[in-house]
Amino acid sequence: MSDAYVLGVGRTAYGRFPGLTVGALAGEALALCLADAGVEAAAVDAVFFANATQGALEGQHLVRGQVALRAAGVKGIEGVPVFNVENACASGTAAVHLAATAVRAGEADVALAVGAEKMYGADEPRLAAAFHGGLDVARWEEGLKALREAAGAEAAPPGRRSVFMDVYAALAADYRRRHPGLTPRRLAAVTAKNRRHGALNPRAARREALTVDEVLAARTIVPPLTQPMCAPIGDGAAAALVCSPAAARRLGAGRAVRIRASVVASGTGRTLDEEARRITRLASAAAYERAGLGPSDVSLAEVHDATAIGEVLQVEALGLVPDGEGAHAAERGETALGGRLPVNTSGGLESNGHPVGATGVGQIHELVTQLRGEAGDRQVPGARVGLAENGGGFLGFEEAAAAVVVLEAPGRRP
Amino acid sequence: MSDAYVLGVGRTAYGRFPGLTVGALAGEALALCLADAGVEAAAVDAVFFANATQGALEGQHLVRGQVALRAAGVKGIEGVPVFNVENACASGTAAVHLAATAVRAGEADVALAVGAEKMYGADEPRLAAAFHGGLDVARWEEGLKALREAAGAEAAPPGRRSVFMDVYAALAADYRRRHPGLTPRRLAAVTAKNRRHGALNPRAARREALTVDEVLAARTIVPPLTQPMCAPIGDGAAAALVCSPAAARRLGAGRAVRIRASVVASGTGRTLDEEARRITRLASAAAYERAGLGPSDVSLAEVHDATAIGEVLQVEALGLVPDGEGAHAAERGETALGGRLPVNTSGGLESNGHPVGATGVGQIHELVTQLRGEAGDRQVPGARVGLAENGGGFLGFEEAAAAVVVLEAPGRRP
Repeated sequence: MSDAYVLGVGRTAYGRFPGLTVGALAGEALALCLADAGVEAAAVDAVFFANATQGALEGQHLVRGQVALRAAGVKGIEGVPVFNVENACASGTAAVHLAATAVRAGEADVALAVGAEKMYGADEPRLAAAFHGGLDVARWEEGLKALREAAGAEAAPPGRRSVFMDVYAALAADYRRRHPGLTPRRLAAVTAKNRRHGALNPRAARREALTVDEVLAARTIVPPLTQPMCAPIGDGAAAALVCSPAAARRLGAGRAVRIRASVVASGTGRTLDEEARRITRLASAAAYERAGLGPSDVSLAEVHDATAIGEVLQVEALGLVPDGEGAHAAERGETALGGRLPVNTSGGLESNGHPVGATGVGQIHELVTQLRGEAGDRQVPGARVGLAENGGGFLGFEEAAAAVVVLEAPGRRP
Repeated sequence: MSDAYVLGVGRTAYGRFPGLTVGALAGEALALCLADAGVEAAAVDAVFFANATQGALEGQHLVRGQVALRAAGVKGIEGVPVFNVENACASGTAAVHLAATAVRAGEADVALAVGAEKMYGADEPRLAAAFHGGLDVARWEEGLKALREAAGAEAAPPGRRSVFMDVYAALAADYRRRHPGLTPRRLAAVTAKNRRHGALNPRAARREALTVDEVLAARTIVPPLTQPMCAPIGDGAAAALVCSPAAARRLGAGRAVRIRASVVASGTGRTLDEEARRITRLASAAAYERAGLGPSDVSLAEVHDATAIGEVLQVEALGLVPDGEGAHAAERGETALGGRLPVNTSGGLESNGHPVGATGVGQIHELVTQLRGEAGDRQVPGARVGLAENGGGFLGFEEAAAAVVVLEAPGRRP
């Protein structure tokens, strides 16, 4: 299998942008990405477009990428294949993975992964429909009940929230069953850490740092999750330009970030107790093997903290932190900037918000920025290897899809 | 770029199946495909799942492939990446193309493309929403008006039908402006030919042969299109197993059909008069170049006859029939079974129906069956090269996406 490199990235701010369409957001990310790579649009051979909710929210059920690129008026990208790809909240890394695959196959010398989502402005029934679509719609209520029972979780109180917050609440209950050391205070330490990081990210939607006490004092969405522990929806877009070694040499090898591995996996239908079969454990094991690296080689990671418990589960599944220590690591500063292995230096989903299709590509944006030493106030000194984990949907007792991407800093000639 | 082969195909009947779900249909196609290839499910490394309408029709907006495969209870395919891909009515060939790309990249030794759609049972507003989603939903009315004006077409009479039938009616008006020889009788000859073919296909939804007079006498959907000239929606699924040369040698080289080329393209925003820039002309030129073959090498073709005028436009754009002669060729029997170059031997969309995500994979099913000499009553003697053309969505004055796949009969050792 031949190599693939990320030659440029671009990302809009995430947040609430009433005046902007999906096309405008995608166009902005694309323009930033091409400028960052120093590449003309005409060099692009293929586009992989990640979007999850525009069908439910706007009725754009089909050809979303083609419509968005046409509406964005992106000049120079014309006629090339555009593939609409979707793996729920992991759509963005699915697009990056398929862009790298097209490059590895020789189908494209230069491929673009674009993730874009416009979520604010939709009414509540449409938002609810979009998120329910991440579960098996014919069986989601019995699925959630089965999860709660297996996790020993109480029925969640009524309230307006995404069904995924109830899923995460049940996962938190299950985690505490196995690891009673996860106190509310420790869980809040994850969010406080990510909010400190987000305060350093000019593109994040939530830019105010919060203390652990402030996180705990905020409104409860569903126990044990308070409002800052839950990623908000978002409008936003991100893009990554993936290319072959030959294109990297031709176009600017000095800043090319190598994709050491990208692995996409599906859930296995495991029980809650079959921890070794957890989707992210399997995906990261495969990614480490392909990369020829291990968790100890990782300089920094972006993981899918749609809620704070998500980060706890993922850093353990990725082998970055010992089992049961995911929140302790945040509390002790190990996963903070300046710590042993900074996690979610971008601020994570909790600070950035979660414009679903953009999220995974945005993680790549953060890692590439860090691995090039261009992250400014939030730079991880000497970052050599970055890992992104992005999960999507929920079936049985875990994510329906997950992706792990391992990137390496520029240096060795492509 | 390394080679890729189709080692097996499977297809359900298309039609109206009130008792079956998308999962059940996908599971049936998958089981048939694996049995045809003689391959265990455990050998599958990746799945590309094409579905266009389940978001609009059932609220399954996300992770449709993961949900369908889980619901189908397919044993042995577990944990492998599942990618949901969508390019409107060209979703199926997009999945086949990406499966071949994964194989060519070395990401998968054996990749499955599955297309499945369950369309009957949905109410009219949902069906309308699904089809409107194939246009730019923010601009579809002005887009259709601009097309009618450019084509010199009259406003279509009111009536209940998919918006795409109005698009095709305008395209037919434009075609007649350039080629006045397209009489209603000649257009009906295309449909009569395809219905004769469909009568020989046990999986087709419409299995009664019709004469030209019967086609003309049927209810008008929108002038000049009568009901048999328009493909109905459909429930159905199809699957194709794509593999590397090494896997083909290991698993059954004798029946492996080589993918000589697969090309996916997007519309260019051309005017109606810029015929040389038509998406299918560009895509097929690229496909012929990659295949090292020309139109005269093609033994048979499956083309996207969502309406009869679609086949006329496509056989010309593909270079299979001289410009202006697409319908004449059907009238003269050139594109019929027994003719110079049989087109839509499966019966086409007009006979089979159009379960959107399945359609492109179903075209591959027909070509592979023919190239292996297994098409029974509708076999094209000595078929060596098969071409599939599959179009999706509509932006500006042409399809938003199109795919052309060129396949070669077994023979040379992979």
